[in-house]
Amino acid sequence: MNSNLKCLAQATAIALLWTVTATTADEGMWMPGQTAEVGAAMRADGLQIDPAQLRRLDADPLNAIVSLGGCSASFVSPQGLVATNHHCVFGSIQYNSKEGQDYLTNGFLAKSLGEELPAAPGSRIYVIEDMRDVTAGMLKGVSDKLNGFARNERLDTNRKALIAACEEQPNRRCDVGAYYGGASYYLQQKLEIQDVRLVYAPALGIGKFGGETDNWMWPRHTGDFGFYRAYVAPDGSSRPYARDNVPYRPKSWLRIAREGVQEGDFVMVAGFPATTNRLRTAGEVRFNFAHYEPLLQHLLSDYAAQIKQATVGNRDAQIRYAPILRGVENYEKKLAGDLAGADAIGLNARKANEEKAYRDWVADDPARQARYGAAIRELDAVVAENSRASLEGLRQALLDRAQILSSARTLYRWAKEHEKPDEDRESGFQDRDRNGTVDQLRQIERGYLPDIDRKLFEAALDEYRRLDAKDRDTAFETALDQIGLDRLYADTKLADAATRLGWLGKPAAAFEASDDPFIKLAVALYPGDIAAERAAKDRAGRRQAARAAYMQGLRAYRHAIGRPVYPDANGSLRITWGKVTGRTRDGQIWTPFTTAEGLLAKHTGKGEFDAPDAAVAAIRAKDYGPYVAPALGTLPVDFMSTVDITNGNSGSATLNGRGEFVGLAFDGTLEGVISDWAPDADRNRSIHVDSRFMLWTMDKIDGAGRLLKEMGVRPASRS
Amino acid sequence: MNSNLKCLAQATAIALLWTVTATTADEGMWMPGQTAEVGAAMRADGLQIDPAQLRRLDADPLNAIVSLGGCSASFVSPQGLVATNHHCVFGSIQYNSKEGQDYLTNGFLAKSLGEELPAAPGSRIYVIEDMRDVTAGMLKGVSDKLNGFARNERLDTNRKALIAACEEQPNRRCDVGAYYGGASYYLQQKLEIQDVRLVYAPALGIGKFGGETDNWMWPRHTGDFGFYRAYVAPDGSSRPYARDNVPYRPKSWLRIAREGVQEGDFVMVAGFPATTNRLRTAGEVRFNFAHYEPLLQHLLSDYAAQIKQATVGNRDAQIRYAPILRGVENYEKKLAGDLAGADAIGLNARKANEEKAYRDWVADDPARQARYGAAIRELDAVVAENSRASLEGLRQALLDRAQILSSARTLYRWAKEHEKPDEDRESGFQDRDRNGTVDQLRQIERGYLPDIDRKLFEAALDEYRRLDAKDRDTAFETALDQIGLDRLYADTKLADAATRLGWLGKPAAAFEASDDPFIKLAVALYPGDIAAERAAKDRAGRRQAARAAYMQGLRAYRHAIGRPVYPDANGSLRITWGKVTGRTRDGQIWTPFTTAEGLLAKHTGKGEFDAPDAAVAAIRAKDYGPYVAPALGTLPVDFMSTVDITNGNSGSATLNGRGEFVGLAFDGTLEGVISDWAPDADRNRSIHVDSRFMLWTMDKIDGAGRLLKEMGVRPASRS
Repeated sequence: MNSNLKCLAQATAIALLWTVTATTADEGMWMPGQTAEVGAAMRADGLQIDPAQLRRLDADPLNAIVSLGGCSASFVSPQGLVATNHHCVFGSIQYNSKEGQDYLTNGFLAKSLGEELPAAPGSRIYVIEDMRDVTAGMLKGVSDKLNGFARNERLDTNRKALIAACEEQPNRRCDVGAYYGGASYYLQQKLEIQDVRLVYAPALGIGKFGGETDNWMWPRHTGDFGFYRAYVAPDGSSRPYARDNVPYRPKSWLRIAREGVQEGDFVMVAGFPATTNRLRTAGEVRFNFAHYEPLLQHLLSDYAAQIKQATVGNRDAQIRYAPILRGVENYEKKLAGDLAGADAIGLNARKANEEKAYRDWVADDPARQARYGAAIRELDAVVAENSRASLEGLRQALLDRAQILSSARTLYRWAKEHEKPDEDRESGFQDRDRNGTVDQLRQIERGYLPDIDRKLFEAALDEYRRLDAKDRDTAFETALDQIGLDRLYADTKLADAATRLGWLGKPAAAFEASDDPFIKLAVALYPGDIAAERAAKDRAGRRQAARAAYMQGLRAYRHAIGRPVYPDANGSLRITWGKVTGRTRDGQIWTPFTTAEGLLAKHTGKGEFDAPDAAVAAIRAKDYGPYVAPALGTLPVDFMSTVDITNGNSGSATLNGRGEFVGLAFDGTLEGVISDWAPDADRNRSIHVDSRFMLWTMDKIDGAGRLLKEMGVRPASRS
Repeated sequence: MNSNLKCLAQATAIALLWTVTATTADEGMWMPGQTAEVGAAMRADGLQIDPAQLRRLDADPLNAIVSLGGCSASFVSPQGLVATNHHCVFGSIQYNSKEGQDYLTNGFLAKSLGEELPAAPGSRIYVIEDMRDVTAGMLKGVSDKLNGFARNERLDTNRKALIAACEEQPNRRCDVGAYYGGASYYLQQKLEIQDVRLVYAPALGIGKFGGETDNWMWPRHTGDFGFYRAYVAPDGSSRPYARDNVPYRPKSWLRIAREGVQEGDFVMVAGFPATTNRLRTAGEVRFNFAHYEPLLQHLLSDYAAQIKQATVGNRDAQIRYAPILRGVENYEKKLAGDLAGADAIGLNARKANEEKAYRDWVADDPARQARYGAAIRELDAVVAENSRASLEGLRQALLDRAQILSSARTLYRWAKEHEKPDEDRESGFQDRDRNGTVDQLRQIERGYLPDIDRKLFEAALDEYRRLDAKDRDTAFETALDQIGLDRLYADTKLADAATRLGWLGKPAAAFEASDDPFIKLAVALYPGDIAAERAAKDRAGRRQAARAAYMQGLRAYRHAIGRPVYPDANGSLRITWGKVTGRTRDGQIWTPFTTAEGLLAKHTGKGEFDAPDAAVAAIRAKDYGPYVAPALGTLPVDFMSTVDITNGNSGSATLNGRGEFVGLAFDGTLEGVISDWAPDADRNRSIHVDSRFMLWTMDKIDGAGRLLKEMGVRPASRS
């Protein structure tokens, strides 16, 4: 057998294997431009519009998809009404609530445009205007002669230049993301809408029904939806909140489907998935699950115990630290799901097989060896080096658990960076980052109590001291010994928000002369921080070079075996599709819809299961109007599908085969979280709130007829 | 309408209500003697043997049902082979394991009688010989003229006398239990088999497959079974372990059903449920869920946090305290299930309605008022008093978290009680209790580290000090202040097991003269303990009087409405029946069987999901022999039914309509735990290991042909 034929046979065998283990329909976060590659498959699965339409950012439906920065959303009316998840507008409901005006518990509905309320500070709606390949611009001056650090600096300079050029256009925010580990770069150009207003959110007992208990779980009965509106100046230009701003008129908006989905239907989701790790090497995966996540889990679990212990019997402290604790426990739950999922799907073996097939393909041909061989070896080496550093980094990062120390480090770094011209400053410390930094410096207020912070810092120091001496910061330890923990907390003035913000913009010399003990520590840490960052940048530069080549090889290999590849999620606009379906396991069947009767069965009238009285009464009376799903004979609440989403997709519109709005994606299941590392069509399910439940709530419970009409829906109630 | 008719109408309405909300088939832990009352219903549901047979303790099948004290079990061969749960023989597997001989992980199979191993010290098999009404004997000399304390003392004296008389027969253990809150008393006479040997237990990866993760969960794939054998002297009398003891020959033993069960089949369970609270008053229920369990949950949750915090970064301590922590977390999980279940079924409203119907029935008739009215009022009063005391008691009991203090209190109490003749001593401190006390004093060893114990004790003291001064013990607090925590732990000699046991039997004066700091604390606590106990006994006496009358009324009422009543579980032999069935909720269906393929899907090869290689290979090869369930087309593992069981039923034989063995009950589901307070046929499900999975494991995996033949099963393998 000649080597070409042998290779072909091997590739065919692998392709067949993949046909069995992965169904394209249930996997993939595709860039809009890739819909050419998968369009036929989408049509076969039930897409009714022309797939070419999904490549166009300036046309329906993609033009209606917007980002909130962290969440996804969509325009659903010609007047800039934006639908997203309740948990994505949560901060804005909270921001507008106060004693005696509890919008969080009771919900909020503006009766007219004039009653719509400014969203929480920093809220933005980003309309994607363009997404262009800037690989050439990013790689300008980048050559193999540069060492890792220099390469990284060059990439950073190029990125900043590309962004700065893009942001010369008024009211635009631009970002440059790496795709395929830096084999390609794309720039997303976004219109930044700065006047965002809260229009409507159902009561907590709808929007967060089931709370943390039901998080990541099925059956689910959460009405996780809410509405913003985009406002602009009367001339149509974007500007901050102003009383005479007017609703933004988007180029397109999603139509609400006349009929909802049913079991087996095609659905697709367009949104902004944040991070996946599907194209990592087998070595990276092994390290992550054998070392990184277990250590992280251990540190988080100890942290949760420390918080509980430090706040025992102190209700005020427990309330203040509840959000941190909830975050820690949520992350632990996710990690536990990740680790269990990796075991359950035999992730290591799967990755090892995939990787071996690719490496064998490279090894089988001298030209491919010459092209990718060195990069693969170099990637393995830098990954190993990086793994060690990332484990140490977990413990080094514990110092930031002292919330004021973290702020002091940010402030001093800001001062140091501001000794340079703006374009030379580190990302995150440029003028464009000022607002974000102010928000971040303010944030510690709610959850800070010196006694508790100190206890947690002491525990963090114990853990930090487990590092080898070479990985600890001598200057910091010496400074801390001189100050002592008592003085550290007694003498600092930084606990006061105004004082803290007052330091933003002061010269570095002022910090170096300061007596504030936390500032002293920040100054002591700085040289070590910079050295560590320099080493990390060197690794990043080398990794980018090696991974870009590795990925070029991988794409060529996947092309050869006829299996298209999409880049890992990185916060940019992606399209995924699948179908509405439940899941069957031994002893248990998940059916794909939940219903109003199921919500009622969970309703206890307290805690996380406390639906509003009006909803309970309407369900008891079966007052469902036109929102009944014919196949179910009742009102659907949530449904489940095989679409492939992750963090960042929250709030994504779910569309039917005609591109019409049928619901909002808002969660996955715990056993599916491993899909961030390796998609598993059998395990992975996404959870959506059904548009019929949204419309029913708006129509029958909350009297939001104004909004329904705006969305082209005729309300059934006289409201 | 005359009052009789009115009453009848009311009773009918209530009875109809009950027909709707409770199905007899799915509720009830019936005493053997009660099968007359429910025999027709059992026949209607599928019982094929004469219900009268279920009243006889001296005949098959009840004669084959035995207690292990805490677990249930059954004879399954003429040679005294006993089947029970893996978790009921767990301690004996552990006891016989050592470095290089890990029976826990690998399983244990005696190839012959001679290889059968002594079970863990204290293991017993109790054969129920008689269960007789001793109400008259218990109430001898008990009159309404006695105050609560005197009444309680009188009951206690009568109980001890009845037990002592019964135990004059050699090798008998007897207990007297209260039924219907003391309206009746029964004495169980049990043959005590003292030579118990471990015969067979599958590997941990079968017997505890799924571990804590799957505990209380469905779908389940645990092969929770193991075998003991009862041994007696060659003359047939019971005696402790001796080399020449021979297998006990039971009067009857269960036959293994030729065919297993299928969906919809009648099943019944006979065993020893420990505790339920279904006949508590509405006030008791309200208090339990509004105050008692929430406080307990809070204390446990803090305790878990304290253990984690005290053992952070100390692997040895984490391992030693793991069983305590697991117990605490398990209990917390159960309480969370209880609290959620109470909300979900609207327990308070349900109990209030039930109670109101009963009280209205009493109020409706002057004769009934005269008979029960005062008792109902008195019960409400003493319940309220008791509730307050039990809340305080939760915090007072925290002192025993100092493990050595707990031992010292037991030892000193032992000495004080031994100043009296045996029959006057408090239960638990009589000669018959000596062995149990020795076991208990030994037990602290494994999980004791002074530094950790001290931290936990300090935390417990903080919580103790939240009690009002009047509820704390001044003598104790003064003694503790004088000693100081440093000396307490540094100077005690009681951490040494031999020293501790050496104190058992020393006179009280020796304790009072001792310098050991924990003994000093125990001596200081004693007067307060006795005073508190005296108050508790007074309440108990008054409660017994009131509750017995209340229950007589309740039984009369339930008789009037045609709804038979069974006493709350109290560790005595009970029969329950139901059917093999899954459960359907909104969005989720539990199907009633799990299968070998489902086990394989959960198998990860590590941690709690690590089935033995041989089992994995046999499942992959579908080597199921004759153990396939025809309706499933594969090997069943566990099944689910509506039988009504609770703690203490673990290891109970599950019988088909012919009284043949079809499996072992081993667990319930978390949403069903509320059934301990109010049976809920819709929510409550029990989980059984299927006899076919047991036989398959014995036959195909472990080569236990010897045992199969003994059980009358022809092995399919050549083993």
